[in-house]
Amino acid sequence: MALLKGILPPITTPFENGDVALGRLRENLEKWNRTDLSGYLVLGSNGESVYLSEKERLSIIEVSREAIPASMTMIVGTGLESTRETIRFTKQAAQLGGDYALVVTPCYYKGAMKPQILYEHFIAVAEAAEIGILIYNVPKFTGINMEPELVARLSEHPSIVGFKDSSGNIGQLSEIVSLSEEGFAVFVGSAPVLFPALCVGAVGGILAAANVAPQEFSQIQHLYENGQLDKARELQSFLTPLSKAVTVTYGIGGLKVAMDCAGYFGGDPRPPLQRPGKQGEDELRHLVSQLRNRAGSR
Amino acid sequence: MALLKGILPPITTPFENGDVALGRLRENLEKWNRTDLSGYLVLGSNGESVYLSEKERLSIIEVSREAIPASMTMIVGTGLESTRETIRFTKQAAQLGGDYALVVTPCYYKGAMKPQILYEHFIAVAEAAEIGILIYNVPKFTGINMEPELVARLSEHPSIVGFKDSSGNIGQLSEIVSLSEEGFAVFVGSAPVLFPALCVGAVGGILAAANVAPQEFSQIQHLYENGQLDKARELQSFLTPLSKAVTVTYGIGGLKVAMDCAGYFGGDPRPPLQRPGKQGEDELRHLVSQLRNRAGSR
Amino acid sequence: MALLKGILPPITTPFENGDVALGRLRENLEKWNRTDLSGYLVLGSNGESVYLSEKERLSIIEVSREAIPASMTMIVGTGLESTRETIRFTKQAAQLGGDYALVVTPCYYKGAMKPQILYEHFIAVAEAAEIGILIYNVPKFTGINMEPELVARLSEHPSIVGFKDSSGNIGQLSEIVSLSEEGFAVFVGSAPVLFPALCVGAVGGILAAANVAPQEFSQIQHLYENGQLDKARELQSFLTPLSKAVTVTYGIGGLKVAMDCAGYFGGDPRPPLQRPGKQGEDELRHLVSQLRNRAGSR
Amino acid sequence: MALLKGILPPITTPFENGDVALGRLRENLEKWNRTDLSGYLVLGSNGESVYLSEKERLSIIEVSREAIPASMTMIVGTGLESTRETIRFTKQAAQLGGDYALVVTPCYYKGAMKPQILYEHFIAVAEAAEIGILIYNVPKFTGINMEPELVARLSEHPSIVGFKDSSGNIGQLSEIVSLSEEGFAVFVGSAPVLFPALCVGAVGGILAAANVAPQEFSQIQHLYENGQLDKARELQSFLTPLSKAVTVTYGIGGLKVAMDCAGYFGGDPRPPLQRPGKQGEDELRHLVSQLRNRAGSR
Repeated sequence: MALLKGILPPITTPFENGDVALGRLRENLEKWNRTDLSGYLVLGSNGESVYLSEKERLSIIEVSREAIPASMTMIVGTGLESTRETIRFTKQAAQLGGDYALVVTPCYYKGAMKPQILYEHFIAVAEAAEIGILIYNVPKFTGINMEPELVARLSEHPSIVGFKDSSGNIGQLSEIVSLSEEGFAVFVGSAPVLFPALCVGAVGGILAAANVAPQEFSQIQHLYENGQLDKARELQSFLTPLSKAVTVTYGIGGLKVAMDCAGYFGGDPRPPLQRPGKQGEDELRHLVSQLRNRAGSR
Repeated sequence: MALLKGILPPITTPFENGDVALGRLRENLEKWNRTDLSGYLVLGSNGESVYLSEKERLSIIEVSREAIPASMTMIVGTGLESTRETIRFTKQAAQLGGDYALVVTPCYYKGAMKPQILYEHFIAVAEAAEIGILIYNVPKFTGINMEPELVARLSEHPSIVGFKDSSGNIGQLSEIVSLSEEGFAVFVGSAPVLFPALCVGAVGGILAAANVAPQEFSQIQHLYENGQLDKARELQSFLTPLSKAVTVTYGIGGLKVAMDCAGYFGGDPRPPLQRPGKQGEDELRHLVSQLRNRAGSR
Repeated sequence: MALLKGILPPITTPFENGDVALGRLRENLEKWNRTDLSGYLVLGSNGESVYLSEKERLSIIEVSREAIPASMTMIVGTGLESTRETIRFTKQAAQLGGDYALVVTPCYYKGAMKPQILYEHFIAVAEAAEIGILIYNVPKFTGINMEPELVARLSEHPSIVGFKDSSGNIGQLSEIVSLSEEGFAVFVGSAPVLFPALCVGAVGGILAAANVAPQEFSQIQHLYENGQLDKARELQSFLTPLSKAVTVTYGIGGLKVAMDCAGYFGGDPRPPLQRPGKQGEDELRHLVSQLRNRAGSR
Repeated sequence: MALLKGILPPITTPFENGDVALGRLRENLEKWNRTDLSGYLVLGSNGESVYLSEKERLSIIEVSREAIPASMTMIVGTGLESTRETIRFTKQAAQLGGDYALVVTPCYYKGAMKPQILYEHFIAVAEAAEIGILIYNVPKFTGINMEPELVARLSEHPSIVGFKDSSGNIGQLSEIVSLSEEGFAVFVGSAPVLFPALCVGAVGGILAAANVAPQEFSQIQHLYENGQLDKARELQSFLTPLSKAVTVTYGIGGLKVAMDCAGYFGGDPRPPLQRPGKQGEDELRHLVSQLRNRAGSR
């Protein structure tokens, strides 16, 4: 069974002239395949999944599965607003070779998404799914947070195998690790806290900035696992400005600029998203060049 | 041209055995057609639009247009996350006879939805659309608020003809009325503030509770326009408990229960949404019976 | 008994060389006494009460009482964090001639300020007080909101005679008016919504901007009570930019600048508060000059 | 110079019959003095400082200094709303033997507390103070957060020697450690994240739960510093339920109950705060008994 551990980028979706550029996607994957990444998240938030038609989403899964070797894990983001559509899409992802499905909390009707409602949603998806399910908690996009007690209850279901926490809340992640079932795979989804997340028991990170710096984030985990805490902490601090720039500051448009600078195909996001202006591009180019200098000086 | 004024319910979508029940939809519309409602919002938040497939949405527009007389206004909710998909769907809605399109603020990538990004999104949609556009501001679902200055700038575009504000913020609605172009149609989207919204210049309300009490909300506006402020205020106070019960307290599941009690077809929402439990049903039944008693005693 | 109705400014505290300038306070009051204001709030949020020593606060009450004629109402802000200190200070305010005490929700331990805790606090203060109590709800400063049901319960106490709502939420104010005891005096504390607040039943406003434009806000209420709704609405819209500038945009520093421009003594706030920079001063001067032009053109 | 490192409890203030019980305070300190605590925070949030008169505050500092040996660090909470009063009180604390002053962000006028305003406030206090200053960031009480860049700028002042971060945000704490001056002492103020805070470079913790479990929290730091990460993590997880119970769940009332159970004098908080009800007391008693069982079994 595909490994649930290590660093995985939530891969971006390349567009050319507004259309999904599957060739570019394949090229990016071939480059990342040569790094120490343990796998990929396809169709996550950073994949602009909410901007894609169903047909586009299916083609992206297909091409990704072809390009991703069996030795690397392919998680597919399959969460939609309704239970029914989420189940349907999760089945499609399994048929197309997804190893696991990442299911975001439904969120449009925020006030109604009480713990018991979320519990029943995830259980229904898990019952129907033919692959393991990871729950995706991303309050900054959804306005909803999954409390540790609720995650612990869900972790008892044999098909609910893990959790991605993009809240940035290390106390919460720590509680989830401690309360959930043995073997439940908790990933952190916020790059600036990869190192402390590992310290409290995360199995790895699903990190936007790993699209740009796959090797460096893999190295943090490697250092941590070898007991080289000071070096891990130092590398983490070095990567934090870039990590923030490609998420909170400039978002997906900024992430794509940074990818272009780092030798991957970034390109434009779909409107209403935009690339950052000149100043943002300069800052991102500078941050990526620091990355290259560091690699060169070693 | 279809009138932009008065009370319009954002109609719910009836389901039977999990599937869209178009016959039930038609029956509901035929009942509402006999009231003083000025029109309808089809595929709004209360229509569970985010839970419907594209095919289902198109069939709902078609059936609604058949059932809604030309003398009543049909607004269609067409806002999706990407500019491209929003334009495509707005064109479809126009072809199927929608009088106006209501376009919600894109919201998944909240941090990126800066005023200029929203401005360009709405202008792009307005440029492409063949029908007039109303902007839909609903922070409780989207986590995004449209500031009055931004709305005022957008109101200058000839195809951006109105605004639905579900923020509940009357100071903001008042500023929007005062800053936007002459003739820009500002609707309130929160039933408990219909009366003060009319006082500060709203042209009407698009109100979930009007699915249940179409005649009563129409009467508030009638009383207001006839200078009977005390009676309008009193009727507003009478309707507030029901209005809150079918939105903040019990959500769409509660709205559908109340519709069942009031002689319309409510039925079940799609999961993860649920009907409220026994206690909620009892409270809603009681509130609807008060409505009937009041009508009977007059 | 002193009237609870009409427009009252929460008066600012004048400082010269960092010390309370009682002579300036007296001069301001003498000017305001010649307007249509119905009274004053002394030691409210805009009086920088949290920056004053106890001795300073007592001297301000004394001087204010001397300068305010018996025909005008003097409300004193007496809310402190502990129940014990609030009671002690409310008694002092009564002895010094305060007609009513305005008691803000305690707020430092936000998480602990549950409805029942707040209920017991206000009841304890009301039981001990020798003057009538108004409750002060100002979520933007306190992070706490008083729900209508809680206010309604408190309104049953004979010594709890009114409420000042600075939430800006007209739906909430409307519910408070409708649920609370007959004769309970609900004031609005947010100038941009004075007009809609009057429409839903507020008895008047306690408004920062009334320090600068006492006559204009009094006129809104006068117009409203004479059924001249269009004129009231128009004057409200005219005053909104100034009202926002002296609160949300530039705060107390801005309010004091505007007072200087309008012929009152504003002066400096106490640090850490500051006067706004050059651009802010220019904007405020311009807004006050518009006020004067309007008055002159009538 | 007194050490800035290790575990310090923000000591509670004992009351008997509503008055400060200095004898009880002395007894508590004598017990804590026999533990591995490195010092104390006197008059912090958990000391109900906002409920104390100036006279009470001064007597508490005096008694504490007498009871605390010179080998242990005494930090005094001296932050008030105005710059002027904060300076005055910080000088008093220094004269009474405080080793350091902890200065909370002023917060009543939240909207006005812009970074530059906060910067000037802390610089003014540091310039005037005769002892080193630590900045106190506690968004859950103040509604204000200090960004890492602002803290880094302030860390350059020779009298601003440290920071207490009670935000619970480990990513932020990590950035503050990395951006601030060498030797700047960053304490974590949230017990459930003591362990990850140490991992990213905190020098220790100022933790409410350390009033109850001084030895256990000291041991986490001891284990961490000896490279026994697994044991430190395990002890952290064991202490988290108690830590949350005496802060987020039951607040200061709950902390005092837990102290009573653990052999210290807790007593009642001042109203409006209250002790939790029967159910809360039972839960707290159970959590403290688990602490004792663990200690006994070792």
